Amino acid sequence: MSVGTMSSFQEAPELDVAQWFNTAEPLSLAGLRGRVVVLHAFQMLCPGCVQSGLPQARRIAATFRSSEVAVIGIHTVFEHHEAMTPVSLAAFIHEYRLGFPIAVDRPSEEGPIPRTMAAYRMQGTPSLVLIDRAGHIRRHAFGAEEDMKVGAEIALLMAEGRGDG
Amino acid sequence: MSVGTMSSFQEAPELDVAQWFNTAEPLSLAGLRGRVVVLHAFQMLCPGCVQSGLPQARRIAATFRSSEVAVIGIHTVFEHHEAMTPVSLAAFIHEYRLGFPIAVDRPSEEGPIPRTMAAYRMQGTPSLVLIDRAGHIRRHAFGAEEDMKVGAEIALLMAEGRGDG
Amino acid sequence: MSVGTMSSFQEAPELDVAQWFNTAEPLSLAGLRGRVVVLHAFQMLCPGCVQSGLPQARRIAATFRSSEVAVIGIHTVFEHHEAMTPVSLAAFIHEYRLGFPIAVDRPSEEGPIPRTMAAYRMQGTPSLVLIDRAGHIRRHAFGAEEDMKVGAEIALLMAEGRGDG
Amino acid sequence: MSVGTMSSFQEAPELDVAQWFNTAEPLSLAGLRGRVVVLHAFQMLCPGCVQSGLPQARRIAATFRSSEVAVIGIHTVFEHHEAMTPVSLAAFIHEYRLGFPIAVDRPSEEGPIPRTMAAYRMQGTPSLVLIDRAGHIRRHAFGAEEDMKVGAEIALLMAEGRGDG
Repeated sequence: MSVGTMSSFQEAPELDVAQWFNTAEPLSLAGLRGRVVVLHAFQMLCPGCVQSGLPQARRIAATFRSSEVAVIGIHTVFEHHEAMTPVSLAAFIHEYRLGFPIAVDRPSEEGPIPRTMAAYRMQGTPSLVLIDRAGHIRRHAFGAEEDMKVGAEIALLMAEGRGDG
Repeated sequence: MSVGTMSSFQEAPELDVAQWFNTAEPLSLAGLRGRVVVLHAFQMLCPGCVQSGLPQARRIAATFRSSEVAVIGIHTVFEHHEAMTPVSLAAFIHEYRLGFPIAVDRPSEEGPIPRTMAAYRMQGTPSLVLIDRAGHIRRHAFGAEEDMKVGAEIALLMAEGRGDG
Repeated sequence: MSVGTMSSFQEAPELDVAQWFNTAEPLSLAGLRGRVVVLHAFQMLCPGCVQSGLPQARRIAATFRSSEVAVIGIHTVFEHHEAMTPVSLAAFIHEYRLGFPIAVDRPSEEGPIPRTMAAYRMQGTPSLVLIDRAGHIRRHAFGAEEDMKVGAEIALLMAEGRGDG
Repeated sequence: MSVGTMSSFQEAPELDVAQWFNTAEPLSLAGLRGRVVVLHAFQMLCPGCVQSGLPQARRIAATFRSSEVAVIGIHTVFEHHEAMTPVSLAAFIHEYRLGFPIAVDRPSEEGPIPRTMAAYRMQGTPSLVLIDRAGHIRRHAFGAEEDMKVGAEIALLMAEGRGDG
């Protein structure tokens, strides 16, 4: 169980967002520096996201103080674009009672993969990215992850000092 | 455990459908006379439907022969209409690998409740309606139901003769 | 979905029981003729029995009227005999709040397999045996079974007349 | 999410053990100083232990390196003593494939509560005790706990230095 030392990690690309839900003001990774950030990428019609990814994101938000750990959902639509518009997403967020901030990944003119998803080279949904207090990517997982392990990894990042290396 | 005798049951109102998925030709209750019909009313953004109702409908379709028991999903949208259009439903059916026939309940000009939902006086989604071989409503449930009980009720209707049709 | 016609089924061997729990008087299949009997064979230290078999037996007992369907547990110990004595079973029944009648299968002098288990040629635990109103074995399954299917099979046996052919 | 600072915690009482399983040599908290210790108290016939506590203990053992985190089960029998003897426990450990070290709490001459359970003033089973690298009790929970939270708490203790305060 380790998320490594801080020396050689990639800086997390800034989020490129078309629209926000559940936050009065737009968020940025730069603005969250000093906190651990949990980025949960999903699509509203992805069964694995609905059954395991999003409930896990909700448990993360319920377990850790938001002043220490910021949970951000990002709707990274890369298929069925016409079926998962922001209008549908708004109803989805309401019906599933999702309370943490959720970003709509900005569509790309060059293809079906939206911009933030492309910048992080995500393989699909659900994807989980853990970003340390200094803004580095420390973990990047595609598919279902165990709560025990995710909880431990977040805590180890919390336990690191606030310095940016 | 009983679904009663056949003497005094209401005839099931015919389905009023705007569009069909997963069937080459439109279906009707009249055309299914002689089979037991399981009508599963859902909305694609209803968590209870996604978590329990639709998986149960799929298990019914997998357990009983379609020549004996016809499973029909009906998308009865009564809220967030703009979020649950047929375009979104098509992607939902694809992503959740639903293989049984699914009807889009016909919208009403008079209010948010679509026509078949109104005719059956459904209280919400998920709703389950069991219709006997003669076309009578024998059970009408709102909310989650246990597999054991639903399986038994369908089997008792199967065991009845082909009745007065 | 069928449990066949009544013509050619084996008669269920009578239970050979060393001790009963949860019943004022010993039970026998002969005495239960006219009812459907659900025989659930288990061992108290068998994980599959504890996780799926016994909870299913409890759901059967809760779903069907006991005047129609008799649920009987039978403790068929064929390994770790010294670990699963009637004294331990009594505590197990109490802690797991099992309310249906439970029989202790009679040990055999000839080997580790107890007598009723041998008479039914069970392959292991959990095993489920469905016996019709006339005392014939209509289904015999080893391992986990789906509630939907088990509920339907019991109901089809219920729907058969009370005659013994 | 915090397991506090190290300043004022009670020292964990040493284990008082009648018999060990799954370890070549007896273990002691003194001998594990420097590691985080997860003590999982259970009874083999306690449904909450079988359904949630022991599977969680197994996930802890699978998630963390044993050189960092020692998982120890302790069989704290305080009722049905005659039903949960070491002979029955041995079969239980075998059938449930429990691989981490398991201690039999030493019975007391003064009453039904065994000695280690009494020393820790446990309220029942399952109970979870987290002990830091310096041998202090940092968390003591009775009943089911969420994996996310338990994983995080263990990790925070791991992240603390090895000093014994």
